Formats: sequence, C-alpha cells, structure tokens
Amino acid sequence: MSTFVLRYFPIKWRAEVVRFLLLASDASFTEEKPAWPEARAQQPVGQLPVLVERDAGDGTEFLLSDSVAIERYLADKYGWLATGGARVTARECQLRNQIEDLYHLMIVHIYGHEAGRPDVQARFDRMARGFVEYHEGVLAENGSNGHYFGGSLTWMDVALYTLLLLVRRPYERQIPGVAGYFGEDKAPGLNKVFETVHGDPLSAGYRATLVES
Amino acid sequence: MSTFVLRYFPIKWRAEVVRFLLLASDASFTEEKPAWPEARAQQPVGQLPVLVERDAGDGTEFLLSDSVAIERYLADKYGWLATGGARVTARECQLRNQIEDLYHLMIVHIYGHEAGRPDVQARFDRMARGFVEYHEGVLAENGSNGHYFGGSLTWMDVALYTLLLLVRRPYERQIPGVAGYFGEDKAPGLNKVFETVHGDPLSAGYRATLVES
Repeated sequence: MSTFVLRYFPIKWRAEVVRFLLLASDASFTEEKPAWPEARAQQPVGQLPVLVERDAGDGTEFLLSDSVAIERYLADKYGWLATGGARVTARECQLRNQIEDLYHLMIVHIYGHEAGRPDVQARFDRMARGFVEYHEGVLAENGSNGHYFGGSLTWMDVALYTLLLLVRRPYERQIPGVAGYFGEDKAPGLNKVFETVHGDPLSAGYRATLVES
Repeated sequence: MSTFVLRYFPIKWRAEVVRFLLLASDASFTEEKPAWPEARAQQPVGQLPVLVERDAGDGTEFLLSDSVAIERYLADKYGWLATGGARVTARECQLRNQIEDLYHLMIVHIYGHEAGRPDVQARFDRMARGFVEYHEGVLAENGSNGHYFGGSLTWMDVALYTLLLLVRRPYERQIPGVAGYFGEDKAPGLNKVFETVHGDPLSAGYRATLVES
C-alpha cells in the first residue's frame, strides 16, 4: 500500500487532474503547500507540483515532478489510461499535451509581461479554435458519447473537465473571452464530456473540493 | 510495414528527436515542408510537426501531432523506451517534459515579444540551473555511464543529445550564454550522455544530417 503527499501552491492550476485522480481512486493522500521560494531548492528542478509516494511497508519514497508525468503515473497505477494499443496511447499523449499548450498560454497571460499579452491572446485564439475543431472531430469519431476513448471515464476526460473548469473561472488577467471558445454552440462534444465527468459518481470527491474554491 | 511522412518547418527545433529515431530505426520515411500558413488548416490543431504513418498494405493513414507524442510513439514502436515498470516510465515522462520546458523558453526568447526577454531569461536561468543539478543526480544514480536508464541508448539519451545540439547552435536572439549552463564543468554527466550518443554507430544517420545545417 502506498500513501501520497501532493505538494503544490495554494492555487487551482496544475494539480487539479492529480487531485481528481487521487480522490476518484480512493488513494490515501495529504496535501502540502510549501513556503515559497524557501522550499524551491528541495524540489526536482525547483518546481511544483511534486508527488511523494511512500511505501507504507518500508517507508521508502518515490518523488515525481511535472504535472503531466504525475497524472500519467497515477492514471497508470489506478487504471485510468485508455487501452487499445500503441496508437491509442500515442493519441492520448497528443491530446493531453494539446491541453497543456492551452494551459500554458493562459498562465503566461496571467503571469507574463503585460507587453506580451496581445501576442499571447492571438496565439491562444488560433490554438483554441484549432483545438476545438480537432477535438470535436476526435469525440465524434468515438460516437459522441461524452468520452474520448471507448465508453468509460479515462484520464483524458478528466483532463478536459479540469481545463473547462479553469477557463470558466474568473481571473483578473485571464485571456478575455476565453470561455467563449468552448461554448455549447461551438463545442458540443467537449461540453458533453464535461457534463459526463461532472455527473459521474466517481467525481463526487473532487466536486466537493470545488465548493471551497 | 509502415512508411512515414514527417511534416515540419525548414528549421531545426521540434522535430530533431523524431528525425533521429526514424533514421536510427532504419524506418522508411520522407520529409515534407508544407507552405505556411496555407497548410495550417490541414494539420491537427493547426500545428507542426505532424507524422503520417502509411500502411504499405492497405494504404490507411494514421496522423499524429505534438512532437513529444510522436517521439514517444516511435520510441515505443522501435524499442527506444526505457524499461523497468511504471516508475521508470513515469521518470522518463518527467525528464522528457523537463527538456520540453527548456525548449519552450528558448523558443519564446527567439520568437516572443522583446519586452518579455528579461523575464524569459530569468526563468531560464532558474530552470536550467535546477535542471542541470537534478539531471546530474539522476545520471549519477544510474552509474554515470552516459545513459539515463540502464546501459544502452534510449529515447531520453537522444532527447538530451538534441537539446545540447540546440543550445550550442548560434541564433541571433538565442538566450545569452545559454550553452554555458551545460558546460563540461557544471554538467559532466550530461556531457557524457552527449558524447555517448554522438559516438554511437546508431546515430550515424542523424549525424550526417548535421553537416548541411
């Protein structure tokens, strides 16, 4: 049996999929919000989130950083990866990294230099339109059933769910009109994934964390 | 049997690991440099690189985008992934994504808004120092043998090799002093990986492409 510690800042960004998977997998975990920048030197490459897995038997620790790597590790451990061979695995990796590209632009817009914002917005505009068109196609190919792969909840559905939660949250320096790119009119397939995940009993633990935020 | 088409811009950035793996795997492939932005609408999410795999038998095509997803797919197909279980796979994913973070900052410095460059350089400085320290530790744990995992060439060795090729190339708007972060004095383990990959007979095909660049 493993117990986990999830270290991250007290914000809702790069650890939401990790939180969802830990809660939905009924894993034993606690959260740490390290003092920053004091705790930077103790983290791999000086970054958060970090996941610490402790073996309940011998107490050994396995440290993992990089949000996508952490998500994928937990998805693998608890059975949330899409199955079907190398091409399915490759497609899942591609789709997740495309979400990461959008995350990244939103973060740059919030925390980056003011002079760069028009460029960031122009890039987001292009990328988000391409994303919606492409992902709608992928979802239609899977039968428009509210899932990216097959007929049940996988890592990618969760990743899309937390992306849409983020784009719908108000931030002072959020990309203007960001939620509009993913509206029901333009992205019915993506919205169906959102509703499917939101309504799944497995998301109950994670949904409860949204109330306080 | 599959044949591949690799679509990318006529520059040396995000397709170098893909080129290396195709050449070292003796795969049958050609390269396309699509007219841009005319060909944007035909690519998933409007981005390059794109890999097209054609089944030589029935002619069906499998399109994959996102450089890391493409690399990982080819590494899986041709036996370049590290082996040893879920934790090794997770570590490999983490290390590769850390390289991607450095790539990304270099690209933003070259192509991003001028006013943002001091911020980008400060972030690169912090990240590159943390990267070198952490990766040197990972390489030492593997016996300082010129490989990230075990005793033979894997995807991560190749990814590090092409990263160091990129940081050593002169670009007009490259991050100043970028190569210095990875010098022999600071990063003996990383340099050993570079020399090991460079001297491996499997890299001969890729090395030949460097002459023209």
